[in-house]
Amino acid sequence: MSCKIGFIGLGVMGKSMAGHLLDAGHRLHVYNRTREKARELLDNGAVWEDTPAQIARHCGIVFTIVGFPQDVEQVYFGPDGLLDNMQEGAVLVDMTTSRPELAGRIAGEAEKRGGSALDAPVSGGDTGAQEARLSIMVGGDREAFDRVLPFFEIMGNNIVLQGPAGSGQHCKMCNQIAIASNMLGVCEAIAYARKAGLDPQTVLKSIEAGAARSWSLSNMAPRMLDGDFAPGFYVKHFIKDMSIASDSAGNISLDAPGLDLALKMYKKLAELGHDTDGTQGLYRLYEQRD
Amino acid sequence: MSCKIGFIGLGVMGKSMAGHLLDAGHRLHVYNRTREKARELLDNGAVWEDTPAQIARHCGIVFTIVGFPQDVEQVYFGPDGLLDNMQEGAVLVDMTTSRPELAGRIAGEAEKRGGSALDAPVSGGDTGAQEARLSIMVGGDREAFDRVLPFFEIMGNNIVLQGPAGSGQHCKMCNQIAIASNMLGVCEAIAYARKAGLDPQTVLKSIEAGAARSWSLSNMAPRMLDGDFAPGFYVKHFIKDMSIASDSAGNISLDAPGLDLALKMYKKLAELGHDTDGTQGLYRLYEQRD
Repeated sequence: MSCKIGFIGLGVMGKSMAGHLLDAGHRLHVYNRTREKARELLDNGAVWEDTPAQIARHCGIVFTIVGFPQDVEQVYFGPDGLLDNMQEGAVLVDMTTSRPELAGRIAGEAEKRGGSALDAPVSGGDTGAQEARLSIMVGGDREAFDRVLPFFEIMGNNIVLQGPAGSGQHCKMCNQIAIASNMLGVCEAIAYARKAGLDPQTVLKSIEAGAARSWSLSNMAPRMLDGDFAPGFYVKHFIKDMSIASDSAGNISLDAPGLDLALKMYKKLAELGHDTDGTQGLYRLYEQRD
Repeated sequence: MSCKIGFIGLGVMGKSMAGHLLDAGHRLHVYNRTREKARELLDNGAVWEDTPAQIARHCGIVFTIVGFPQDVEQVYFGPDGLLDNMQEGAVLVDMTTSRPELAGRIAGEAEKRGGSALDAPVSGGDTGAQEARLSIMVGGDREAFDRVLPFFEIMGNNIVLQGPAGSGQHCKMCNQIAIASNMLGVCEAIAYARKAGLDPQTVLKSIEAGAARSWSLSNMAPRMLDGDFAPGFYVKHFIKDMSIASDSAGNISLDAPGLDLALKMYKKLAELGHDTDGTQGLYRLYEQRD
């Protein structure tokens, strides 16, 4: 009989991901800061636990996907946290995008307690989570990875072990760094098209098939043009990710001027009150310069 | 019987493009500053002309694809140039990436002489030219466009009329603006991966399928990692394009900080002696910071 699975963090992403585990027939124990968000899962057979500690005591594998690194610290190291209550041999899997050093610290502490930990941030957004088509970037031991892989495969379709603890987070930073500068290029290309008097939709027909092709150009430019700034991925979370990437780049002596510029601009966007826009909201900064 | 076709500029791109027109059975008259580069086309039946003026006198449709805006000026406005010698009703088609205002000026002058002009810069690089899979971004009159379209279709597979004269160039600027910032993101992502101790190839497996996906990430990152900086597209030509885009952005009151940053960094790369690298050579700036 399979072990019980814990899931902590039932936001937009976590709720879909936990739902897939439940649909696959696993015995799922859940915890979330706001209990209301668990209701649908509980109706479908998930078991509520009152604290992360309770999850840890009952489950051999625990997934977490919360908001910010400080939330991760709370869930793992807090008074009712996972680490001090984990089962021997358990695997704790943090799927939050968080600091690589924190992932390393969690793995070290889990090991001291006879278990292990993986960092496994994801890419693919709300639709990727809904459709179980996430890219999952994993850091940690091969043995723990192999044990959790069947569960990852229920949530995602591109699962790669990147290296030891922290490597999943580092890989996610690479992902966000590539996206950050590209988003500037997409905004500027669209803003240029409009200000030069072209029809931006017609411009997209020319440029999205060639060397300028990118996911952001094809998926975000049309939303910018429609004035649709609803969040797929929040500005405030992107700022968090880029801030981690920027700190981390400093730690490894990497100058990343594109990242720096993108972070500065997104912070400006947030200061203007748009921190709960989707990341395509960056286009507002170019619009207001008319 | 079809009219004679002129082709001026037999560099890496032009030679392949002219070759396709010749292979399709058209009577091709060619001119190039360096005659040597025309040899293969002449062997295959193209007719040599000694000046752009001679081309203009003999051909109802003339294609040009030369290096810099000053070369375009020379070919169109010079003493042995196209404009003063064009046939009535001829169409002059500049496929060089050049200044939008220059395209407008050429179109105006062509009209005064009873003909017309199109600006039709391309994207797709040397392989796109070889395989007749160029994206061709066209500015000018619909009538002239319709007349030249069958020839464009011999050279490319994504041909879009973007608007009046200059619109093709403006669209190409959008293309280059999108690529410019993205290239920073690609370099920084790869440099981060390497400095963080990840295997960049493994990182690509995770990130090139998701929201960081782009043509540059999939095509340029592997070359960067191989230390292959051979030109598909020259740094010096990219600097030309970005300089035009930057001037043009100024003319339409668009702040484009991503473009500005990319241009600054590519100029630095050129100053270091790498102006005949391919654009992926930007990665050198991140490498040398070890």
